[in-house]
Amino acid sequence: MASIFTKIVNGEIPSYKVAEDNAFYAFLDINPLKEGHTLVIPKVEIDYIFDLESDHFASLFKFAQRVAVAIKESIPCNRVAIAVLGLEVPHAHIHLIPIESERDLNFGNPKLKLEPHRMEQIALSISSKII
Amino acid sequence: MASIFTKIVNGEIPSYKVAEDNAFYAFLDINPLKEGHTLVIPKVEIDYIFDLESDHFASLFKFAQRVAVAIKESIPCNRVAIAVLGLEVPHAHIHLIPIESERDLNFGNPKLKLEPHRMEQIALSISSKII
Repeated sequence: MASIFTKIVNGEIPSYKVAEDNAFYAFLDINPLKEGHTLVIPKVEIDYIFDLESDHFASLFKFAQRVAVAIKESIPCNRVAIAVLGLEVPHAHIHLIPIESERDLNFGNPKLKLEPHRMEQIALSISSKII
Repeated sequence: MASIFTKIVNGEIPSYKVAEDNAFYAFLDINPLKEGHTLVIPKVEIDYIFDLESDHFASLFKFAQRVAVAIKESIPCNRVAIAVLGLEVPHAHIHLIPIESERDLNFGNPKLKLEPHRMEQIALSISSKII
């Protein structure tokens, strides 16, 4: 069965898309820790990120770098943090999270509930900054 | 002034080395969240990881992938997590942390204090698994 992320890539489930190319897809986390919290995934459905073929793994991070630079230009923050846990959805994904301090990178923190209009604004702002 | 990590790379400060090549260096975090918690750094001293030139950034993660695979083979864990915050030492570094659950990736958690002998054992075990 297709993962929820494959369904997002295929447009079967809507997402706030930030960037896409042939191999990778980036979209806003629907339960963000911070405004601008973005997920970057390979289109190929693989569970454990380190199982990706080496060049594909490197290209995924290269793509994520472009997204992270755009997030930093769109969202006021100290840094864009990277986190990969891989425990929830069995489809590898990189979290890119605008943070002010170490405390912001804690998946036990309460998630934000943003209005669809705000999510659209954020996605548009980030995607407009992608080079 | 050289960062503490540059001093580690240069051997001016000792470290529990796990892997090294021309451009990158991996060593055990001296204040680990879990046994096997490893830092992967570029030898070039750059503060914000996303400022690395794109190919160098991708190569850093490719190197980190090799280290992560070796950690998974050495340390019993569910996954090896990736975290980059970049708030403490102004020299880009990737945390690779063996985790069982989401709760393990929290830099507010108490750090382990391991004996030098145990740190040496862990470093040797991981480095022996690097391909």
